[in-house]
Amino acid sequence: MLETLSIKTTSRNQFVELTRQIRSLLNDELSRDASFRDGEVIVYVPHTTAGVTINENADPDVVHDFLLTLERLVPKDAAGYRHAEGNSDSHVKASMMGFSATVLIEDGQLVLGTWQGIYLCEFDGPRTRQVHIRFRRA
Amino acid sequence: MLETLSIKTTSRNQFVELTRQIRSLLNDELSRDASFRDGEVIVYVPHTTAGVTINENADPDVVHDFLLTLERLVPKDAAGYRHAEGNSDSHVKASMMGFSATVLIEDGQLVLGTWQGIYLCEFDGPRTRQVHIRFRRA
Amino acid sequence: MLETLSIKTTSRNQFVELTRQIRSLLNDELSRDASFRDGEVIVYVPHTTAGVTINENADPDVVHDFLLTLERLVPKDAAGYRHAEGNSDSHVKASMMGFSATVLIEDGQLVLGTWQGIYLCEFDGPRTRQVHIRFRRA
Repeated sequence: MLETLSIKTTSRNQFVELTRQIRSLLNDELSRDASFRDGEVIVYVPHTTAGVTINENADPDVVHDFLLTLERLVPKDAAGYRHAEGNSDSHVKASMMGFSATVLIEDGQLVLGTWQGIYLCEFDGPRTRQVHIRFRRA
Repeated sequence: MLETLSIKTTSRNQFVELTRQIRSLLNDELSRDASFRDGEVIVYVPHTTAGVTINENADPDVVHDFLLTLERLVPKDAAGYRHAEGNSDSHVKASMMGFSATVLIEDGQLVLGTWQGIYLCEFDGPRTRQVHIRFRRA
Repeated sequence: MLETLSIKTTSRNQFVELTRQIRSLLNDELSRDASFRDGEVIVYVPHTTAGVTINENADPDVVHDFLLTLERLVPKDAAGYRHAEGNSDSHVKASMMGFSATVLIEDGQLVLGTWQGIYLCEFDGPRTRQVHIRFRRA
């Protein structure tokens, strides 16, 4: 079964942490199926100007510096862009992060490192974004 | 079973859309196995100077701007390169895009967003490239 | 079952090839389970300043040029960073490479291209890093 989160973003560039919501969906799945202990979760973003990555969940300054760096690398306006919507940068940033994340599940827990959080990466907000979640048994 | 597409590229830097071919392979798979409705497809590129990404399938200007941006970020010739083949940039670009894409399948359909297409990303063409496709049942 | 490699890195920025160790774990897995011939291996890095990618396994100059390019794109020190640990660049570089790699397995072999090797990407070493490995049956 596919589950879908709907996430409202509030800025053009923004990281929204999804870890708590994914963990909660995992717990629902575990309580529906006692035989499910190990596997993976696939987090999939069905957009072309938003992606998904894993990064630090503790210090919000990391996200600040992350967005600053991506904006410096791929500025919104650059010479030579042809795409008329003014979001060519957003497409590149999203592909740099990627559109799916796979996280292992072991003994009913997400196998995340201590500092790892799962983030929706908005690069052309504010918008309402979908995030698909699928759990797989090992 | 592993299926392999063979794709001839025609430029040094080029995005080749694979969505139609992958959908066609999925339909073959569904017609061989009536019990297969949900799962994933893994698209894997067995090269080091070509990758795979998902991006806009509508306006070709997006691909133009995408390649322009990658070339600006990682130019073919830069001070300090040691690798004698003259394609150090191609290796970096390919890793930035990645070598596999996972796309969900639900009720016999690829779960792609409206604007999402799956692209082979050529960064050292023209060449003939392989793309491996594997379908997984949920 | 989840297997975990422990890798000691020796520089701030370093690529450590894991292909041989993953192939050896695959052979152990195959000898434990004669019915396992096809599937995938998921290589997962549970950190936020180290990632995983696939790249050339032959000429070490490729890795040199790769690290040089990433350092040029995302220098250790840049104007505007707020994160006090001095490793904002490491977080961005790790996300650019990604935290998981999926490699297909066919007839008991990793389906890697001729030049492909699987690398742990250290961006804030030297440290001891964990790499989780899970094999999936097709």
